[in-house]
Amino acid sequence: MPKPSGAKTGPVAILAGSGQLPIRLVHHLERTGQDCRVLAFRGFVSAELRRRADANVDLLDLKTIMRRLEEWQPRAVALVGAVRRPGFSALVGAYSLLRNRQEVREVIARGDDQVLRGAVMLLEERGYKVVGAHELAPDLVAPPSLSGIHAPNEEDARAISVGLDLLRSLSAFDIGQATIVAREHVLAVEGPEGTDRMLGRVAAMRRSLLGFRKRRDGGVLIKAAKSGQDLRVDMPAIGPRTITEAVRAGLSGIAVGAGSTLILDQDKTLALADRLGLFLVAVELPWMDHSHGS
Amino acid sequence: MPKPSGAKTGPVAILAGSGQLPIRLVHHLERTGQDCRVLAFRGFVSAELRRRADANVDLLDLKTIMRRLEEWQPRAVALVGAVRRPGFSALVGAYSLLRNRQEVREVIARGDDQVLRGAVMLLEERGYKVVGAHELAPDLVAPPSLSGIHAPNEEDARAISVGLDLLRSLSAFDIGQATIVAREHVLAVEGPEGTDRMLGRVAAMRRSLLGFRKRRDGGVLIKAAKSGQDLRVDMPAIGPRTITEAVRAGLSGIAVGAGSTLILDQDKTLALADRLGLFLVAVELPWMDHSHGS
Repeated sequence: MPKPSGAKTGPVAILAGSGQLPIRLVHHLERTGQDCRVLAFRGFVSAELRRRADANVDLLDLKTIMRRLEEWQPRAVALVGAVRRPGFSALVGAYSLLRNRQEVREVIARGDDQVLRGAVMLLEERGYKVVGAHELAPDLVAPPSLSGIHAPNEEDARAISVGLDLLRSLSAFDIGQATIVAREHVLAVEGPEGTDRMLGRVAAMRRSLLGFRKRRDGGVLIKAAKSGQDLRVDMPAIGPRTITEAVRAGLSGIAVGAGSTLILDQDKTLALADRLGLFLVAVELPWMDHSHGS
Repeated sequence: MPKPSGAKTGPVAILAGSGQLPIRLVHHLERTGQDCRVLAFRGFVSAELRRRADANVDLLDLKTIMRRLEEWQPRAVALVGAVRRPGFSALVGAYSLLRNRQEVREVIARGDDQVLRGAVMLLEERGYKVVGAHELAPDLVAPPSLSGIHAPNEEDARAISVGLDLLRSLSAFDIGQATIVAREHVLAVEGPEGTDRMLGRVAAMRRSLLGFRKRRDGGVLIKAAKSGQDLRVDMPAIGPRTITEAVRAGLSGIAVGAGSTLILDQDKTLALADRLGLFLVAVELPWMDHSHGS
């Protein structure tokens, strides 16, 4: 029973997963006087957001999700924060309530991005306008001028260049948006485990180098949207915790895609990087068309 | 004081790191009546190999390594088993005893493979013939006909194809030789942590999916030599432990590059895969020229 398409005039609807981004976005909307409703995915959202939520639903309970949206008639819908990919058969079962089972299997098999893109398609078919957090809160986006007091040296610049090449090569595959490179040596490629765990892995590898490690080993976390990535789903994001984890991994800095990466708390994140001796820069991604600014 | 080049007639020299491969190779050589000497890297080799070794040396003690080789005058030298990459400055310091410091820095910065390739170059310059374990013990190499009683299904075949594409895309970068793919969804790319830890990561990710996981989730470990890889250094290898770790990660099978992957104990490895319900196949790598057979 798809609703007829047409401009809706209700509040902004936030479909919220884990992490700090959903609550930051809600605060931003409240501060700027924009009405919003929060639909929180049970088991994923923070306690603060759960209390703030207008409805708590199961990720796979598409019927309730759709019913709420019909009630709210939101003028825009944003999918914000991470949700762990449920098991394949659970996903197929849930989505098959709405769509042909075989078609659903094929979309889901293609990976996480495809699942989220499938959700966007589903919402758009029902007449909802799906937007990215960056469109609702441009303040959260890394500007090209982003920079703390520390700067990358020549070796870091080489690492950034190798990392960007690597991420571009991986764009065709449904895999992470981040890599860690020391000089020209790739230390890790992010999978579905996320950036924090990838940083933890590098920290552990380096600790296990016994007596060899005497000082910070260097290396750069490079995080960027993929070529062709729909920024409305799973936009890359960093925040204060990324800084502390990067320091624990012995890195010298972080480079993010300018205009296409969210920074959860820019002042706090930069201040922390400055204090801990880490550089934080935004780099232009040759493959982005910057149509994100809305 | 490089020695004049020329055919040497001494024993085979094994420069041994960690893992089961060095001891397997020694056993193979002994069984086939080939004289060999083992130079074991302290802190890396197994207890069994340490007892068998003719000399135990520090990885970075190039002087002693070279002195031993001069004594032995080996007809062939093989670098076998993994060594963890030491810190950058330790490596530069050690190698700079023999070579120009800036040149050394540049080679090492390019990554693990380059370091090992650098070691091969150094040995060859001194007149040693460097060979791969596969040349000394062709029995250890996965034949194109490798197969247990289980076979990949259609979804596994797609995963293998995606995995091979991914590994080929990554050939230009100094990164792992393995990936884990479920259907078309990349679950992990191997970094310097190695295959076992990558499998452990996927096992942990899947355990953390709370109640969603009810049965084996499937997915394939694809492990293959890179395009352009010198098989004398860091040749991909699997063994019985790879099978048990793959089962723990919920995978349905393993695909390795035919003719360019070592299997530590083929009978035991296949029997274990059969018993635990895992498929194990060798696939032709379009990018290999198969000049390894010597």
